[in-house]
Amino acid sequence: MTTHAPHAPHATHATHATHEHRLAAILSIGDELTLGQKLDTNSRWLSQQLVDLGISIVEHVTVPDDLEAHVAVLARLAARCDLIVSSGGLGPTADDLTRRALAVASHDSLVHDAAGEAQVRAWFAARGRSPASINMVQAQRPSRGLLLENRHGTAPGLFASIDSSARQCDVYCLPGPPREMMPMFDASVRPSLRPPAGKVIETRVLHSVGIGESDLAQRLGSLMDRECVPLVGTTASGGVVSIRIRYEGEAPRVQAKAAVNDAADKALSLVGEFVFGEGGESLASVVLNMLKQTGQTIAVVESCTGGMLGEELTAIPGSSACVLGGWITYSNEMKQALVGVPSELFASGGPGAVSCEVALAMARGGRERSGASIAIAITGVAGPDGGTPAKPVGTVWVSLAHARGSDTRRFSMGGDRASVRSWSCTAALAMAWQHLSGRSHALLRQVEAYVE
Amino acid sequence: MTTHAPHAPHATHATHATHEHRLAAILSIGDELTLGQKLDTNSRWLSQQLVDLGISIVEHVTVPDDLEAHVAVLARLAARCDLIVSSGGLGPTADDLTRRALAVASHDSLVHDAAGEAQVRAWFAARGRSPASINMVQAQRPSRGLLLENRHGTAPGLFASIDSSARQCDVYCLPGPPREMMPMFDASVRPSLRPPAGKVIETRVLHSVGIGESDLAQRLGSLMDRECVPLVGTTASGGVVSIRIRYEGEAPRVQAKAAVNDAADKALSLVGEFVFGEGGESLASVVLNMLKQTGQTIAVVESCTGGMLGEELTAIPGSSACVLGGWITYSNEMKQALVGVPSELFASGGPGAVSCEVALAMARGGRERSGASIAIAITGVAGPDGGTPAKPVGTVWVSLAHARGSDTRRFSMGGDRASVRSWSCTAALAMAWQHLSGRSHALLRQVEAYVE
Repeated sequence: MTTHAPHAPHATHATHATHEHRLAAILSIGDELTLGQKLDTNSRWLSQQLVDLGISIVEHVTVPDDLEAHVAVLARLAARCDLIVSSGGLGPTADDLTRRALAVASHDSLVHDAAGEAQVRAWFAARGRSPASINMVQAQRPSRGLLLENRHGTAPGLFASIDSSARQCDVYCLPGPPREMMPMFDASVRPSLRPPAGKVIETRVLHSVGIGESDLAQRLGSLMDRECVPLVGTTASGGVVSIRIRYEGEAPRVQAKAAVNDAADKALSLVGEFVFGEGGESLASVVLNMLKQTGQTIAVVESCTGGMLGEELTAIPGSSACVLGGWITYSNEMKQALVGVPSELFASGGPGAVSCEVALAMARGGRERSGASIAIAITGVAGPDGGTPAKPVGTVWVSLAHARGSDTRRFSMGGDRASVRSWSCTAALAMAWQHLSGRSHALLRQVEAYVE
Repeated sequence: MTTHAPHAPHATHATHATHEHRLAAILSIGDELTLGQKLDTNSRWLSQQLVDLGISIVEHVTVPDDLEAHVAVLARLAARCDLIVSSGGLGPTADDLTRRALAVASHDSLVHDAAGEAQVRAWFAARGRSPASINMVQAQRPSRGLLLENRHGTAPGLFASIDSSARQCDVYCLPGPPREMMPMFDASVRPSLRPPAGKVIETRVLHSVGIGESDLAQRLGSLMDRECVPLVGTTASGGVVSIRIRYEGEAPRVQAKAAVNDAADKALSLVGEFVFGEGGESLASVVLNMLKQTGQTIAVVESCTGGMLGEELTAIPGSSACVLGGWITYSNEMKQALVGVPSELFASGGPGAVSCEVALAMARGGRERSGASIAIAITGVAGPDGGTPAKPVGTVWVSLAHARGSDTRRFSMGGDRASVRSWSCTAALAMAWQHLSGRSHALLRQVEAYVE
């Protein structure tokens, strides 16, 4: 009987990961993914972690719960990479095939791991439950492999090496649920990795708002040539265009950083007026930081977004320092009762719920009632129903009320209900950023503006 | 000079797609994806569309903006599939390489398409803008390929066939932004597809709440054997465990449907008490439908979720029929001022903001002030800060107030801030579903409950 080594990264390291992890592939397993029933968020997160360590990602692959396909993709990737990190297929049920696929691909057989069984039993015991008999399959591992402890679920992870003629490839198999996968990566994978010694990846990402991708690229000009070192690229997503700068090579870290910073400075000199933040920053986090630094507070009054703006602001840890809260005034009655929008605005012949007047009244009413430094209101037609010739789906008014006045703008958002709502929040946050940073350029999809 | 054929699916069909589309791969392109800077949502959506047509997805692949890697993956997938649908890499900038990769992989060269240029110019003209000179690269296509019209952005899509020794593979290249990609798929790809004539894929997905994945699998028993037709699998995601039933074969459609329905009936007879919906239904949509059917309304009062519950409810089209709105009572002052939580509950020695008493007062206050049939309140410690030994991070109270009383429960949610908030909304919606459907079983992570 062999013992497994939960939390023994050094043992794992010493016995298995004796080569550099230079090129990696990310593998996701599951019918629910290839059938489009579920969104894969693991590949993104895992890529971020590996890239931060200087390991290049050559590919993301997703395959269904099919043993043959699973074994084939492991063999193909193992011939090309030093490292594979997979997620999914470790559950207790018959469609969870990762254990068997890893054993076949590493030319090994599965053995029962007594310490692994104890771990599964302890997990259930700690919750006053007993494992189902099918959970015992989760204590199996390839005979030359290791189990990785799962502190947040029943499925232990797996480690094994696949030797191909081309190279040795280390394979880490993690559970599918992100809240089990992420801590297991941190505890059992990250400490075992050996990023390439000479290899350096340095990146910066600048985020802009209020300019389209091709206009931005035009202004960046030759900075975006594919031959440039570092490489500069752009990505547009929901109103935000990001400028990605990346150095990948063998230069000393300090030199790589300087080259990336130099490219970022050049980009900022060309398009800096549109840049609100960088890296992990979002419009919401930037707005919250500016509020905190100036001792200000914010409240929201949401109609068509139904709480999305509040959700985005409060998603950020520590937001309670400046987010007071707000109102979801979805019905016209709630707009009147909760933030005092005058009833005549809704009367026949009046401007109606989606109007400059109502947006402004919502923002002012919310600011007065909350005592916040600034209040932002959103009212619009998110669709698919409710559009009229005068106010088609996508018509959205956003108003920002502050101590010295107000800024109210109409937008014509494209896309479906989810897009309209998400763009509306981006527009609202961009207006808050402009207010706090003293800027005022037009935003994408903005049609008219009234500043008092 | 060749003319391109915007909206000419029949021409495309007649000239190119002369074989069945039985096996497909989904390809995503972009450094921002492999670097983990952006989440790929296109692969899921495209898979859903193809599976609905009876086309099997063998793989999702994501590669960086690298011409060699892009060409290699096209060649590999073309040898294995009848159809590749890719997204990304069609922008105007130097890192957009899809045009060149498609030309190389299909042994063709790029030509300028005059009608394509006119289309790009018209798109800008309609917005009172001029295209940047770099936008003209977007009018290029492989000489034997076609451009696909983009009504929602500047980047036309591309179609070409790759002939390998193994088979002919049709390749559709769509833009990366979902709001351009999705309508282009609907207009120019879907009508050209030839799903396999005899091949049938029938699926049903049942969604359950309040039972763990292994307990559910234990109850489903032999129904989940991998040899069963149809195949039954399970997937757990944030408190909801889904039962996936799939028939894939050559049986007549009606027979395949009957087999899937029979398996679903068996599953429902075993675990039906936990099943709240199926397919595209979510807890939020099911709760809204039950409210609509019974002529009831709902309001929310959110603290740690900051608007997320309102956002989930109002994400559903037509939600205005029963969602009145609510309050984001993030600060203690807002809890008192907006929904009348008694100030003594926050006093030293009192129960505090995260307590049964405050949750119940929030729900009752919200129900009274909104006049809604039911009101749901959430207050908890989402973390990462704010936890205490008595109320660690993940402690969440949810209260539901209705005409005849209330239901208030404490949960101990695991994971990070985002997980705690998301699980809290799931718990709140599950309580609403139980209330409306007359059920009351304990939910996952529930620690205590008080029903009045």
